[in-house]
Amino acid sequence: MSFKAARRGAIAPFIVMDVMRAAAAREAEGADVIHLEVGQPSGQAPARVLEAASRAVRAEPLGYTLALGRDSLRERIARHYRQAYGIAVAPERVCVTTGSSAGFLLAFLAAFEPGDRVAVAAPGYPAYRNILEALGVECVLVPVGPASRWQITADILARVEGRLDGVVVASPSNPTGSMLSAPEVAELAAWCELHAIRLISDEIYHGITYGRAAATAAGMAAASHAVVINSFSKYYAMTGWRLGWMVLPDDLARSVECLAQNLYISPPTLSQVAAEAVFDCIDELEARVAAYRANRDILLAELPGAGFDRLAPSDGAFYLYADVSELTGDSPEFCARMLAETGVACTPGVDFDPLEGTRTLRFSYAGSAAHMVEAARRLKAWRK
Amino acid sequence: MSFKAARRGAIAPFIVMDVMRAAAAREAEGADVIHLEVGQPSGQAPARVLEAASRAVRAEPLGYTLALGRDSLRERIARHYRQAYGIAVAPERVCVTTGSSAGFLLAFLAAFEPGDRVAVAAPGYPAYRNILEALGVECVLVPVGPASRWQITADILARVEGRLDGVVVASPSNPTGSMLSAPEVAELAAWCELHAIRLISDEIYHGITYGRAAATAAGMAAASHAVVINSFSKYYAMTGWRLGWMVLPDDLARSVECLAQNLYISPPTLSQVAAEAVFDCIDELEARVAAYRANRDILLAELPGAGFDRLAPSDGAFYLYADVSELTGDSPEFCARMLAETGVACTPGVDFDPLEGTRTLRFSYAGSAAHMVEAARRLKAWRK
Repeated sequence: MSFKAARRGAIAPFIVMDVMRAAAAREAEGADVIHLEVGQPSGQAPARVLEAASRAVRAEPLGYTLALGRDSLRERIARHYRQAYGIAVAPERVCVTTGSSAGFLLAFLAAFEPGDRVAVAAPGYPAYRNILEALGVECVLVPVGPASRWQITADILARVEGRLDGVVVASPSNPTGSMLSAPEVAELAAWCELHAIRLISDEIYHGITYGRAAATAAGMAAASHAVVINSFSKYYAMTGWRLGWMVLPDDLARSVECLAQNLYISPPTLSQVAAEAVFDCIDELEARVAAYRANRDILLAELPGAGFDRLAPSDGAFYLYADVSELTGDSPEFCARMLAETGVACTPGVDFDPLEGTRTLRFSYAGSAAHMVEAARRLKAWRK
Repeated sequence: MSFKAARRGAIAPFIVMDVMRAAAAREAEGADVIHLEVGQPSGQAPARVLEAASRAVRAEPLGYTLALGRDSLRERIARHYRQAYGIAVAPERVCVTTGSSAGFLLAFLAAFEPGDRVAVAAPGYPAYRNILEALGVECVLVPVGPASRWQITADILARVEGRLDGVVVASPSNPTGSMLSAPEVAELAAWCELHAIRLISDEIYHGITYGRAAATAAGMAAASHAVVINSFSKYYAMTGWRLGWMVLPDDLARSVECLAQNLYISPPTLSQVAAEAVFDCIDELEARVAAYRANRDILLAELPGAGFDRLAPSDGAFYLYADVSELTGDSPEFCARMLAETGVACTPGVDFDPLEGTRTLRFSYAGSAAHMVEAARRLKAWRK
């Protein structure tokens, strides 16, 4: 007897993880692989986080928490908005989540019906599309490029054909690293407010910026309908701890709580306890940002010499997005060949952009400076 | 402008968690509350788990893992099937999940389309219904009672009207604690195989049994289509660590992997490292089961004297499910009054049974023996 499998289960793989597996396989064969494919900070979480976790392992029972998270962490996150952005966010609006991944799932389930239409940028984080599609929501791919700094703006949204029920923006963006300015965020929020389009603001790379600070939609008067999603995995370097948070609009707070109870019970307790300490580790976290900046400077100086000279503006995050249309029309093949011939792993653009991704790729510079230097050396030798 | 919220976000709250909040509020007022509402082991995870976690906090980078989990943990889980059940399960079929909660979501998304019809027992774990409904799957409530030991059997399934695409069973069951026998699991699997109905076997209370051992659908010839879901939160007492696993059928393995990549990235890394140690803690875990058994004996001896004398057979888990139809027709009001007047918190049956739950309630005996004695004393005094 043949069993039915759900069509919605047949979503695209998260290609970067397949690349990681290919890179791991090469390493298992003895190859010296440089990981420019991995979108995560290297090394451990800050020292105080580890100390807090060690204490909690000895001292706390670590059972379930409330679905929205420990009150003390929700209050600490609210205080972070005062300290980092100078805005007031009520702790009641903060929902601690099992990574930003849970934030996206909860926000999409609470805000969008099957058949709804939600705009996402191409290129953009692939899980937006894949989660939305698994939930029966139609993704309206909005091509973005240099003209709008690789971001969806209010002007661009106004030109999208057909009804829209929501839009997902990310600033800094994965994969481009580009940012929306504060006026652009405000304008976008106001446009969404006017047209009853739910704004989902992915702010998981906040803190990792190289010029101006990133603007949050939280606390913006016009964005009282918006869902803000953040993470402890990037700036806060608590990647495998699987913890993030949302700032919720009033009208979705209760449904998100009920969904979180049923879908997650609660976020990992030890991670919640440890995360409270991370806000006191700003010096250590800023040192990481300085290291990313140095890595970025190395790649920006060296990659053009390897033929990668058409790069999106890397305002933040730890990515460089390269237009390689003069080198290939088949980015997966190109990346596979790069890995095989140089040992440098990076992610083909098809992961981020179903429209143009065969002609782009993403370098992550979250690793060490030595690796950046060596990667640039190998790539220049390869492309000679 | 009024914003739309998704109807599917308006699912029922997980009432036990609202009861927990009410109990916590009473404690904050100084009341001495006995928690018979909480469906989780008390105290800490086993000592070796805590030691492994402490070591990992110091020594491991704790970044993302592969979406299906660390290979060493998948292999350890596969070995557990050999050791505990004497059956062969290939490590490739094991998917580590962020609690069994993630197992249910992934299994339901991979196996069922919107509009599909899935049978669930009433009473049963409320998240089955709530997750399925959030995903647009129709729950077919199957009333069960003493006649089938509060379980869905092949005979009962055969009498369900209309098409079925799947069935969820739990043995031991939450909230009743009752179990399916090995022949009943095999018969159910064969019936599902014959009719192409996907069997989801919730085995999260395996190990906590008081007579015969629980039978797993994993490895049964007729259940090669089944999804087996398990958890580190119950027998293994790693509740807040948010870790579980699935044993997957071949035809869903790839879609579950892609869904897991996109929806979770990976389960919590520290929990995965620590969980490998839990399989070497059998003595400590069995001592917990002995304590549950002693608690169960106390309640089975004492509760009838308080008027709770119609109890489902508590073959396993740590629950007693009481028919209180002679005491009330409004279990939420009854439980609220019990909490207010005696300080004993328990969960009204409406959480588990939309059909008959106004006349039932669930006692959890995962706490201490002293609490069981005191709860029984208070309830007897109350009902005098």
